[in-house]
Amino acid sequence: MAGYHVAPLEKLVEQFEQLPGIGNKTAQRLAYFVLNLPKERAQAFADAILTAHEKIHYCKVCCNLTDGELCPVCRDESRDRSVICVVEDPRDVFAFERTHEFKATYHVLHGAISPLSGIGPDQLCIKELLARVQDGTVKEVIMATNPTVEGEATAMYLSRLLKPLGIKVTRLAYGIPVGGDLEYADEVTLSRAIEGRSEM
Amino acid sequence: MAGYHVAPLEKLVEQFEQLPGIGNKTAQRLAYFVLNLPKERAQAFADAILTAHEKIHYCKVCCNLTDGELCPVCRDESRDRSVICVVEDPRDVFAFERTHEFKATYHVLHGAISPLSGIGPDQLCIKELLARVQDGTVKEVIMATNPTVEGEATAMYLSRLLKPLGIKVTRLAYGIPVGGDLEYADEVTLSRAIEGRSEM
Repeated sequence: MAGYHVAPLEKLVEQFEQLPGIGNKTAQRLAYFVLNLPKERAQAFADAILTAHEKIHYCKVCCNLTDGELCPVCRDESRDRSVICVVEDPRDVFAFERTHEFKATYHVLHGAISPLSGIGPDQLCIKELLARVQDGTVKEVIMATNPTVEGEATAMYLSRLLKPLGIKVTRLAYGIPVGGDLEYADEVTLSRAIEGRSEM
Repeated sequence: MAGYHVAPLEKLVEQFEQLPGIGNKTAQRLAYFVLNLPKERAQAFADAILTAHEKIHYCKVCCNLTDGELCPVCRDESRDRSVICVVEDPRDVFAFERTHEFKATYHVLHGAISPLSGIGPDQLCIKELLARVQDGTVKEVIMATNPTVEGEATAMYLSRLLKPLGIKVTRLAYGIPVGGDLEYADEVTLSRAIEGRSEM
């Protein structure tokens, strides 16, 4: 803005603007909000960013995010270690954990194979997954990558690596989402739902 | 989430969640994004929050935000000091500055009178405004508070204080927004637009 510059404020706006889904107007709103916070709450915000960055790293077994050596799931003795659910993102683990139904373990790839974005198998946590299945305790690997072209390709790639090791490889069911409206379901989802129909 | 806790990550999510318009899902997305930033960019983010908090305070003339003694507008010698545009929020100053048309000065109230929220005239920067108009250089005060009940009440309150001092008090024009669609204009705006019609 010509003639109107308050450098520290603009820097803060820029910082918010780099976040995904935050445009200039929202970034301004957030910056002003943070500016109006009491000193100790602004300090807490800044500390949370730095602490998260320092303390959080990959779980050495499943590559999920954790602040300990193992993530809470891998630490949990009651989990069934013969089944691994492979997901793209740590947030997917949260999503499964919210169901309170899944009692096995996870493996976080941290992405999906995407030649267009230059992401090959080497950039993903695939060798860690292969290391886990070597000792024969793992009987089944569930592919829970996203239902996208990249997610499918990744699932296919992993399945070709795992099947020769005698591991059962499964894929999440496709179909209409519960509580969804059939009218709004896309054609691909609907035809997958018909393909995967089960007897009542 | 039962059994699934990564404290530093949750703290960061909480920090984002307190921001206006940011729900839990978005807060998670932002936290993961920040976590994936290179170390120095996360540091820059945290620094921007702290620096903005330390350096920014009210301009001692107009109560706008600044990192100097005076804000850029009050520092600017070319500004017409006989006209003051009264706004509720520092962002409103930005909005006016973007027009590149307004060459006078501002006064930021930092809110509007709102008995329901317990905000009275004493919590706003009103005494600073009254101090500015004492020496007779100010000829006109433009009320540019928001077109809300609170903004109107504030404008009315200030107008009653300023008029006895022989100062011309004006109000921004009400009417249909340029580029807007008449069909979507509300009744109040439309009737104000008719009231305020001008000859072509």
